[in-house]
Amino acid sequence: MKILLVGATGTIGSAVRNELTLRHEIITAGRNGADIFVDITSPESIKNMYQTVGKVDAVINTAGNVYFGSLSELTLENNEITIQSKLKGQMNLVLLGLNHVNDKGSFTLTTGITMDDPVVGGASAAMACGAIRAFVQSAAIDMPRGIRINNISPTVLEEAIEEYGPAFPGIVPVSGKKVAQAFRKSVEGAQTGQTYTLYC
Amino acid sequence: MKILLVGATGTIGSAVRNELTLRHEIITAGRNGADIFVDITSPESIKNMYQTVGKVDAVINTAGNVYFGSLSELTLENNEITIQSKLKGQMNLVLLGLNHVNDKGSFTLTTGITMDDPVVGGASAAMACGAIRAFVQSAAIDMPRGIRINNISPTVLEEAIEEYGPAFPGIVPVSGKKVAQAFRKSVEGAQTGQTYTLYC
Repeated sequence: MKILLVGATGTIGSAVRNELTLRHEIITAGRNGADIFVDITSPESIKNMYQTVGKVDAVINTAGNVYFGSLSELTLENNEITIQSKLKGQMNLVLLGLNHVNDKGSFTLTTGITMDDPVVGGASAAMACGAIRAFVQSAAIDMPRGIRINNISPTVLEEAIEEYGPAFPGIVPVSGKKVAQAFRKSVEGAQTGQTYTLYC
Repeated sequence: MKILLVGATGTIGSAVRNELTLRHEIITAGRNGADIFVDITSPESIKNMYQTVGKVDAVINTAGNVYFGSLSELTLENNEITIQSKLKGQMNLVLLGLNHVNDKGSFTLTTGITMDDPVVGGASAAMACGAIRAFVQSAAIDMPRGIRINNISPTVLEEAIEEYGPAFPGIVPVSGKKVAQAFRKSVEGAQTGQTYTLYC
C-alpha cells in the first residue's frame, strides 16, 4: 500500500514508520524532517499536502498538540491550542482527505488515555480525544467507497515516560512496538469505526 | 438553590425548568424569552451573563447547536457550527463560570445519543458530544472548592420525535419528564464526572 504518515518523526510516528515500512511505501509528512511539509492546524497546509501526495491507500495521523495544565489555568486561549491541533487538525485531515484516499482505503487517527483515565491537567486533551473517538465511530457508517476509519488510543509510551511520566503517577507505559501493531491492525485489517486502546 | 439555566426555552430546558422550579430559584438565560440574554458561541456574551447573574449554586446548560448532515456535506464551515456552539459553548460556560459558582456547586452539561449509537449525518454532533463527555470526566477531578460537573446524554425526546425521528430510524424516544430527573440527580445529588445516559 501507499501510506501517508503524518507526524512521522514523533515518538509514535517513528514506531509506526519502522513497522509499516517493512511492507508498504511510506510517504512522511510533518513540520520537520518529513518528505512533505504539513501543519495540521492549517486547512490550507493540509490541502497543499494532499495536492502534492495525490492518491493514497491509507492516511495515518500521529501528530497533534494538546494543552496540558490544571483546570484553573485552562484559559480559552490555551484550550484553543488543543482544538486547533488535536481535534480540528485530525478531523480536517479526514474531511479534506476523503477524495485523496483510494476505494477501501483507510484513515487512522490517534488519541490517548486521558479520555478514559483522567489525570490532573488533562481536561483539554481528554476533550479532544473524546471528540475524535466519537467522530471516528460515527463517521465510519457514512464513509464513501468502502473507506474505513479507526482510532488508536495508547497510554504513555515507554520511549516518552521520562517526559510524561510525572504527570501520570502510577502509569504503566506501553512500548512503541506494541502501539505500532495497533496501527498495523487498523491499516491492514478490515475493521472500521473502532478505537483500539493500549492501556497497560 | 439558585440555579442558572441556559437554554431554558428549548425542549429539554423547558422540562428541566418545570421540574426544578418546584424546589429552587431558577434564573433563565438564552437567546430568546429568558431572564438574561446569552449567546454561548460568544465568550463576551457568556462573561456578561455571569456578571449580571453574580453567584449561583448550579449552572445547567441545555443549549447548543450542531450541524447535522452526511459526511460528504460536512465541510469545515459546517463543522464549525458544532464546534462553536455544542463544544466550545458548553466548555466556555464552565471555564468562564468557575468563579461564579458557589462552593460545592455544580455544572451540568448536555450531550446526546449520537456519540454512542451513530446515525448517518451525526458525525459532527457525535464529535462534540464525545468531547464534552471526556471533558466532564476529566475536569471533575480538578475542580476547585468542591464544585461538581456532570453531563446528561438523552436519546431523542418524545416532545421532539416528529422533528428528529426520521433521522433516527428505530429510535425509541424518552420523555422530557424522565430526562429532567437526570438533571435533578446531577444538581441535587453529590456525584461528579458522570454522564447519565437516557437511551431507551
